[in-house]
Amino acid sequence: MRILGIDPGSRATGYGLIEKQGNRLVHIDNGVILTGNETALSKRLEIIYRQLAEIITRYEPDTMAVEQIFLARNALSALKLGHARGVALLAGVHQDLPVYEYTALQVKSAVVGYGRAAKGQIQEMVKILLNLPEIAQEDASDALAVAVCHAHSVGLNTSLAKALGRAGR
Amino acid sequence: MRILGIDPGSRATGYGLIEKQGNRLVHIDNGVILTGNETALSKRLEIIYRQLAEIITRYEPDTMAVEQIFLARNALSALKLGHARGVALLAGVHQDLPVYEYTALQVKSAVVGYGRAAKGQIQEMVKILLNLPEIAQEDASDALAVAVCHAHSVGLNTSLAKALGRAGR
Repeated sequence: MRILGIDPGSRATGYGLIEKQGNRLVHIDNGVILTGNETALSKRLEIIYRQLAEIITRYEPDTMAVEQIFLARNALSALKLGHARGVALLAGVHQDLPVYEYTALQVKSAVVGYGRAAKGQIQEMVKILLNLPEIAQEDASDALAVAVCHAHSVGLNTSLAKALGRAGR
Repeated sequence: MRILGIDPGSRATGYGLIEKQGNRLVHIDNGVILTGNETALSKRLEIIYRQLAEIITRYEPDTMAVEQIFLARNALSALKLGHARGVALLAGVHQDLPVYEYTALQVKSAVVGYGRAAKGQIQEMVKILLNLPEIAQEDASDALAVAVCHAHSVGLNTSLAKALGRAGR
């Protein structure tokens, strides 16, 4: 199962692709879509949408995972983030990907085993978990983290279904 | 010149089409895209995008006008609004429409001549300006208002360009 994790932002959108092979997680690719030089918001959104659509076409993931946001520094930054997040979700839906959302607490717990982990700890754990040659750029690392979170939650759901299946027999 | 005004929202997105014929403004259509029954955010965004794309294909507007948001009640409502606004802008850019943004102050000043006008006054003025048989639904009326604002600002810019042209001769 191949998972595309996304960390949306109007200036920088991180993406990370991993594959779940049994109990192993294999890193496929990660990167950042930068729109910083394009000043018109609508053009920046078009860049995010188009590049994500290209990534989905190239890597054919089975699902998309995005961090669910509850808190933002302020209403204006939330509004900007919302624009980028909206077109990212749309890119997934347009290519028939099921889209899953995870809270920051879920992502941190899945990756570091601790809901209040610091940014640096997450980047370090993502590197170790996925056997990366070096620490990924911050947005790309966050995108990989949410993909890892989805992989774990699918594993849990499957294990739980098996356990319940055995219990029911 | 045909203008598509948009008032985005994750549950209800208003749209309004007008045509500027010389100094006259002619109402073409208005309505509301409702996504309220669809619970998944990504699906709601897809509905907004698809229906706007259909409206643009059917009516072939020359430009899109959207209200620029500075203030939202709180960060969460700003985030939700951002998602809807992002896919609305994308629908315009994907069909090569130039997208213009106007502040609430600009819209109110253009429609009522008074920046602190109440909702009801705007709806009433939109009805009178566009010769509507009755007051339009609130989101649709707001969408028509931002279209009217764009029509006025284009008129001003053109007049100004003419005046400057004469002055330069």
